[in-house]
Amino acid sequence: MATKYLLSEEQLPNVWYNLMADLPTPPPAPLHPATLQPAGPDDLAPLFPMGLIMQEVSTERFIEIPEEVRDIYRLWRPTPLLRAARWEKALGTPAKIFYKYEGVSPAGSHKPNTAVAQAWYNKQEGVTRLTTETGAGQWGSALALACQLLGMQCLVYMVKVSYFQKPYRRSMIRVWGAEVIPSPSDTTTAGRAILAADPDSPGSLGIAISEAVEVAAQRDDTHYSLGSVLNHVLLHQTVIGQEALLQMEQADAYPDYVVGCVGGGSNFAGISFPFLGENLTKGKKTRIIAVEPAACPTMTRGVYAFDYGDTAKLTPLLKMETLGHDFIPPGIHAGGLRYHGMAPLVSHAHQLGLIDAQAVLQTEAFSAGVSFARSEGIIPAPESSHAIAMVRQLAEECKQSGEAKTILFNLSGHGHFDMAAYDQYLDGKLEDYAYPEEKIREAMKNLPVV
Amino acid sequence: MATKYLLSEEQLPNVWYNLMADLPTPPPAPLHPATLQPAGPDDLAPLFPMGLIMQEVSTERFIEIPEEVRDIYRLWRPTPLLRAARWEKALGTPAKIFYKYEGVSPAGSHKPNTAVAQAWYNKQEGVTRLTTETGAGQWGSALALACQLLGMQCLVYMVKVSYFQKPYRRSMIRVWGAEVIPSPSDTTTAGRAILAADPDSPGSLGIAISEAVEVAAQRDDTHYSLGSVLNHVLLHQTVIGQEALLQMEQADAYPDYVVGCVGGGSNFAGISFPFLGENLTKGKKTRIIAVEPAACPTMTRGVYAFDYGDTAKLTPLLKMETLGHDFIPPGIHAGGLRYHGMAPLVSHAHQLGLIDAQAVLQTEAFSAGVSFARSEGIIPAPESSHAIAMVRQLAEECKQSGEAKTILFNLSGHGHFDMAAYDQYLDGKLEDYAYPEEKIREAMKNLPVV
Repeated sequence: MATKYLLSEEQLPNVWYNLMADLPTPPPAPLHPATLQPAGPDDLAPLFPMGLIMQEVSTERFIEIPEEVRDIYRLWRPTPLLRAARWEKALGTPAKIFYKYEGVSPAGSHKPNTAVAQAWYNKQEGVTRLTTETGAGQWGSALALACQLLGMQCLVYMVKVSYFQKPYRRSMIRVWGAEVIPSPSDTTTAGRAILAADPDSPGSLGIAISEAVEVAAQRDDTHYSLGSVLNHVLLHQTVIGQEALLQMEQADAYPDYVVGCVGGGSNFAGISFPFLGENLTKGKKTRIIAVEPAACPTMTRGVYAFDYGDTAKLTPLLKMETLGHDFIPPGIHAGGLRYHGMAPLVSHAHQLGLIDAQAVLQTEAFSAGVSFARSEGIIPAPESSHAIAMVRQLAEECKQSGEAKTILFNLSGHGHFDMAAYDQYLDGKLEDYAYPEEKIREAMKNLPVV
Repeated sequence: MATKYLLSEEQLPNVWYNLMADLPTPPPAPLHPATLQPAGPDDLAPLFPMGLIMQEVSTERFIEIPEEVRDIYRLWRPTPLLRAARWEKALGTPAKIFYKYEGVSPAGSHKPNTAVAQAWYNKQEGVTRLTTETGAGQWGSALALACQLLGMQCLVYMVKVSYFQKPYRRSMIRVWGAEVIPSPSDTTTAGRAILAADPDSPGSLGIAISEAVEVAAQRDDTHYSLGSVLNHVLLHQTVIGQEALLQMEQADAYPDYVVGCVGGGSNFAGISFPFLGENLTKGKKTRIIAVEPAACPTMTRGVYAFDYGDTAKLTPLLKMETLGHDFIPPGIHAGGLRYHGMAPLVSHAHQLGLIDAQAVLQTEAFSAGVSFARSEGIIPAPESSHAIAMVRQLAEECKQSGEAKTILFNLSGHGHFDMAAYDQYLDGKLEDYAYPEEKIREAMKNLPVV
């Protein structure tokens, strides 16, 4: 039995899929943080190139992938789709489980799909340098790689505590030729203010965003780049699902379920939006499930409201499912899923009932990740393991009912830089977090009144 | 232009290539460590299954890969062959550079190719547990993976200093369900003797081998497994070159050079022996180059003599290129290349003038590795970077001469667990070692007199 479905370089999709074209109603536009009026393209121009701003508001169904972007994608794309035949057997399920593996990219995750595209559109408009923030380094390393491949400079503000405690993705950023600065730093007004108040500040994503945005806003040759949440980021990730559509056809199968983990929403949107498009335009009935950590339950326990994208309230307000910009999730190991909000497009689709959301405890995620690794070999990133935990639940249901459902999930990255967390899990030292209702309600008190 | 050459699952080779069949003269047989007489199959039976012992002495040209082994190979094989088009451009060379990428295996290197085969042959003969030693953990993790996939137990003695200082591959071993014990340990007579003399012993590969062999020799259900050097290990790795032959054909090219790094010799043999076979049987003229670290110059500065495989003098004596079993290489970062000897088959081929050997300094290797990563994305293992440094030299020569030679090299693994070494290199803190002649001569004083 075949277990691996590969596409040739010629089969690399030449378009991204834009869900905006097929939604029954459009998602609300972002609001300017100062005026609270709808933000227009000009409001975003200091930070982003017009090519990306236009993608942010486009309602075209398909947007062409520039040839040079496809050329770089070809270094690792098309990524393989695999049948998890050994894992099915280990679970004793009649379910057919497929996974799309994005860990084959040099940065080890799906992140370069948008990093390369963003860098390219910036380069077309004369921008020679990008700034960004990064937590554990997944996004920062992806952008460093993209800038290096396109001959651009890259400056990454990395949350200080991660810079020193999780140095390996920092090293990757350096190997790929980018500058990486622990944040808060004395290179920006925002950073200096934080350091003045607390010289030992461990930093946060919110602070690092402020520093990166400040540098980008000051210089014409420099723009800012974001790794998730925005429409154009989700758009670029749809290359995953576009490939998966072809590969499921190769496998002579079609998914009853599509599953992805959600932090900001981009890898989930990447695998699922093309299948959601099939639901909306071709009467398919795939159930699409976003899986979030129980410790940061944005979709399952948050509200749908206008909120800031960052703690410092510098970004436009986005209508999204959110726990409030003041919500501080605990230090769970799926760092990429610790975001208070959710991509507006994913939130909107959820509100419309087009997709489902489920929350998973982190020990459940690690347990599923280990189970998967022992059958399929690949050690998944803790983020991806949240999707795997959900797939295992679905496979269990199939075992109970005897139904041979077809499940597709996105294995968004490998866990090579998360081995210390696996040790904690195997040593029984991993803790679970489930938030009391009042604590969540408290964080939402500071939601902006629009 | 195509840059990636993929094979379908059906194209996965069904035979390994055995160089023994085509050599003009056979390599000398190993000697028993006690009698110094040629060691027969029975001498090896306490440690290895007869299936592998027969491969050790076989002169059949092709040996069938068992279907269950191929089935596991398919989790990551066939591995891709890529054209390094971006790197060629960066180097400004007319050379055509191709690389075979073995880092896509779950363990991140070529090691599982033989781990899976060894575990399978042991399982056929009723063995339920394998023991082995590991330094930084590349081999230990590969064997843990193989045993897990075949439902066998695995016990890994890991050099104590690595166990504590490089814990991430140790964690992989645990995720794949094997037991991993820091060596020296109190679980064996050998380990207890070392600890009695020096309770703070940091351990060594030699000690860890002694412990693993001791456990295997004691129990009928337990055998020992070695990750390089022996003929059957090299045989299993030829699946790499067998695939590369097909893929070079796909690319409508044939290598003028095949390059691989050498420690024990297995990844080098894996990529090169099938091409050497073409030289020997079909009149091809590919130049085959083994690249070793200047800090452990076995092939370029050692002697060809019978020597022990380990420092403790427990193994059979092998006729090989060696720096002497007492040679202690410095702590360079390409841990997989720090072996005093060289596979007997590789040594023999070198002595016959069928292959060349070159030594490379580690800063040169890291410099080449960074150059490669900045063009091709993939961050190579320091071991593989030694091959890359040689390829860069050849590409330079082509630039000088204007010749468009075709170069193929084996990218044996990724560097995800070696990022600290990259930091040292980027910080200018990496040291080079070149041995004074007298020091090498001194280490060879203790070569056994046969």
